[in-house]
Amino acid sequence: MRLLVVYDVSDNGKRSRLAKELKRFGLSRIQRSAFAGEVDQQRFKDLCRACSTLVDEDTDVVHVIQLGLRDWERRVVIGVEGGGEDDRGFVV
Amino acid sequence: MRLLVVYDVSDNGKRSRLAKELKRFGLSRIQRSAFAGEVDQQRFKDLCRACSTLVDEDTDVVHVIQLGLRDWERRVVIGVEGGGEDDRGFVV
Repeated sequence: MRLLVVYDVSDNGKRSRLAKELKRFGLSRIQRSAFAGEVDQQRFKDLCRACSTLVDEDTDVVHVIQLGLRDWERRVVIGVEGGGEDDRGFVV
Repeated sequence: MRLLVVYDVSDNGKRSRLAKELKRFGLSRIQRSAFAGEVDQQRFKDLCRACSTLVDEDTDVVHVIQLGLRDWERRVVIGVEGGGEDDRGFVV
């Protein structure tokens, strides 16, 4: 399944660890606080669990959205996709 | 159609004007830099045009993603949906 993960995390350390974890799951950065990529059902569950252990649910928010491939392919990108705090990711 | 708009805009003034514009289109804030809501095909085009006039395409990025209702309804939210720089928006 194709996932879009968008997050708003205030603490720099937590935000950085979350980004690393999303990359570990094979997602690519599409914006500073947004990643996208393909995972299977089990890794989707593991990813959600990992996200909830890495953020403060009182102050932060993470959206994990399953996307149809067609919806993903017809997305409109205004500006430069990828990039972010530490690298210039590429969308799979 | 249901839209998700996610943005990474560095200039505070531009970012604030973009948020106001997205609210004007009837979208609700789901995170600091993410809005969601329902628009028809014409307003989808108008919204994309408005976004591209409001941001610097060399430094900023906006993703406008059409979502199936089912994909939206089964989104996973970790933390508190809504809220942001100027208000606590509510998801439609």
